[in-house]
Amino acid sequence: MPYVNVKITREDVTREQKAAVIEGITDVLVRVLNKDPATTFIVIDEVELENWGIAGIQTDEYRRRKAAGD
Amino acid sequence: MPYVNVKITREDVTREQKAAVIEGITDVLVRVLNKDPATTFIVIDEVELENWGIAGIQTDEYRRRKAAGD
Amino acid sequence: MPYVNVKITREDVTREQKAAVIEGITDVLVRVLNKDPATTFIVIDEVELENWGIAGIQTDEYRRRKAAGD
Amino acid sequence: MPYVNVKITREDVTREQKAAVIEGITDVLVRVLNKDPATTFIVIDEVELENWGIAGIQTDEYRRRKAAGD
Amino acid sequence: MPYVNVKITREDVTREQKAAVIEGITDVLVRVLNKDPATTFIVIDEVELENWGIAGIQTDEYRRRKAAGD
Amino acid sequence: MPYVNVKITREDVTREQKAAVIEGITDVLVRVLNKDPATTFIVIDEVELENWGIAGIQTDEYRRRKAAGD
Repeated sequence: MPYVNVKITREDVTREQKAAVIEGITDVLVRVLNKDPATTFIVIDEVELENWGIAGIQTDEYRRRKAAGD
Repeated sequence: MPYVNVKITREDVTREQKAAVIEGITDVLVRVLNKDPATTFIVIDEVELENWGIAGIQTDEYRRRKAAGD
Repeated sequence: MPYVNVKITREDVTREQKAAVIEGITDVLVRVLNKDPATTFIVIDEVELENWGIAGIQTDEYRRRKAAGD
Repeated sequence: MPYVNVKITREDVTREQKAAVIEGITDVLVRVLNKDPATTFIVIDEVELENWGIAGIQTDEYRRRKAAGD
Repeated sequence: MPYVNVKITREDVTREQKAAVIEGITDVLVRVLNKDPATTFIVIDEVELENWGIAGIQTDEYRRRKAAGD
Repeated sequence: MPYVNVKITREDVTREQKAAVIEGITDVLVRVLNKDPATTFIVIDEVELENWGIAGIQTDEYRRRKAAGD
């Protein structure tokens, strides 16, 4: 009866990719823990880049600095 | 001091329905656990059908198959 | 297909009270949103008083001050 | 390796304010718990006023009543 | 930079099974979304059976009834 | 009316440290977003090392490898 919440940055993830994430994670829970897929929920939350912080700054800024070699 | 997070699929839930969910769940916590409504939060997250997986597939696909008798 | 997460403080909530919370919240979602109980999950998390902050302080301290008339 | 989820009402929070929230919370975790900012995530969820309940009613209604002196 | 929260019932899940869940889900996110495993967090929450509701009742009761052919 | 959930690894965080985290994060939300502390909740979840994955492995294993210079 698992519930899985996947938080990722919002950046043009396609319907097909979401389907693959849902299928892939469900398969892991069935294979490893013998869970019933019928009662396995996977909920994907897409988060704006400016709403996700890492290393004390926003993700888009973080990537800019990383690309600039900081 | 409860915090309740309700995740539902996004499909034209009205303002009135949300008010009824908030009132109903708050009432349950007051009645059963004697909680103070003034410090009871209910947060509703509406999730796109393609972002919610059940049985290893997306919810809209899941309903299509079910309606088709699969 | 709702998923509900209820966070409450850990303070001797009985099995019967948890059952009543689960039944009550499920009923709200069935009645207001016409959800199917078979795919409605309610997960209760019990949180230690010292892990729950309100008004900038821990819940047990918060209650002490309130009882003392602060 | 902390993960922090901040739920606030959606009401014109600016990019700069979000940056300040991310920086401020990360600083708290570094200062108090000696966490490594490189593996500290802060995720901000903005919630519509009608999706956030307090005292058994929606936040916008709650504020209206409070402003009216109820 | 994904964050994944896996909620499962607490019932003697071994360290090895948790490792397999973490590895498997991380692999899905790397393969499907090209995410960097170094900034991919998987957090597993184990929930007591009496704290998890399905179909309006607690999970242990739900299983008892199912086993009894209800 | 913010709600903040802090997930950290469980490793002897003291009551005083938790109080400092609660106070510090509340202060950030008051200062940056002008939130009312009276309706600001901070909930800390402590997660076992073997339940937290990073880079596809459990946190304790991750630290062992890092300390070994991997």
